[in-house]
Amino acid sequence: MRAIIPFKKCNAKSRLGALLSEKEREGFAMAMLSDVAEALISSGCFGAIDILSSSIIEIRGTNIVLTEKGLNEALNEYLHKMSYHSIHEPVLIIMADIPLVSIKNIKNIASSSADIVIVPGRMGGTNALFIRDPSVFHVDYYGASFLKHREIASTNKLKHEVFDSFNLSTDIDETADLAEVLLHGTGYAARYLRELGFILAENGGRVGVKRI
Amino acid sequence: MRAIIPFKKCNAKSRLGALLSEKEREGFAMAMLSDVAEALISSGCFGAIDILSSSIIEIRGTNIVLTEKGLNEALNEYLHKMSYHSIHEPVLIIMADIPLVSIKNIKNIASSSADIVIVPGRMGGTNALFIRDPSVFHVDYYGASFLKHREIASTNKLKHEVFDSFNLSTDIDETADLAEVLLHGTGYAARYLRELGFILAENGGRVGVKRI
Repeated sequence: MRAIIPFKKCNAKSRLGALLSEKEREGFAMAMLSDVAEALISSGCFGAIDILSSSIIEIRGTNIVLTEKGLNEALNEYLHKMSYHSIHEPVLIIMADIPLVSIKNIKNIASSSADIVIVPGRMGGTNALFIRDPSVFHVDYYGASFLKHREIASTNKLKHEVFDSFNLSTDIDETADLAEVLLHGTGYAARYLRELGFILAENGGRVGVKRI
Repeated sequence: MRAIIPFKKCNAKSRLGALLSEKEREGFAMAMLSDVAEALISSGCFGAIDILSSSIIEIRGTNIVLTEKGLNEALNEYLHKMSYHSIHEPVLIIMADIPLVSIKNIKNIASSSADIVIVPGRMGGTNALFIRDPSVFHVDYYGASFLKHREIASTNKLKHEVFDSFNLSTDIDETADLAEVLLHGTGYAARYLRELGFILAENGGRVGVKRI
């Protein structure tokens, strides 16, 4: 089984621009990527972990596959090349911005008997996607990709499972999301935010973050 | 084992006021409550399911416990009265606005071996709380209640587990949340929204809802 993590380093996480400088956003994106990579490595489920990126980065235990293509094009090319080179093994595509992911989450997905496991993000996204046979599936991210991936599975008569996880549904895009990292994170991303001076702040009964 | 659902009917879900009239909000709150109650009933785990509310409502298979008290006061009084009347059984407190909850979710929580199971909502909330021995625990909702409940468990030397579920983390408070009901819901709440004319709408790559 192999894992693929698409990763954008340049001008990463632009919606966090109000609280983090460009350099800090890149550092934070790398910290979240490290959390995801560590969960994958520690699960022991994968023979190869490939990071698809336009930037040369180094994360121990992973390979970099350089690409300038967009998300869908890069991933579908990867899946297609696997078939072309007769590499027949399941693939887990997992987003780089879900730092709450646990080793148990990964093991549970990898032990599913379904053909396709779709892990929803909030608001219709797909935060992880397990594909047993990459030769009979393609990805279609952006918008309500959860519905699109379910549809692609149905069209191809593949048995799919929806994986229910708060950890995995929590992609970190906006300022409010940083609270989730401080509330539940125990890894690199939480530590990075704390070192920058971020703390939880209650405001009229709601939880948010502030930088001290 | 018994279940408690705190429920506010009067002026329910005021943050949905931009898209739903007061009557529709009450109807939607009742539909979500019905989804939660049905999952509890169908799980077969509970000898009693009590709805704590200031309104007289009827949901098949449940009892109404009328109270004018606030959330924390009403729940802690309930737990205290159990001890006072020597009713020694575990309790699941579950919010009424998490319509994506599944029977499997409930069974998994009920089969935990922990003293306390905390099910996080988004942004520090607690959407469900399993208490094995109500005589040694009290609740403290609002703000970062997830952290407070974890702290109360630690202080009382109770073994706690955090239950990881997207379904249960998804409390429906704001307009954007309605998209989650349309994307993932299969019960009363999803049907209610569809009957009012709500559909998913993509807007610049983001998923939202509109009313037709």
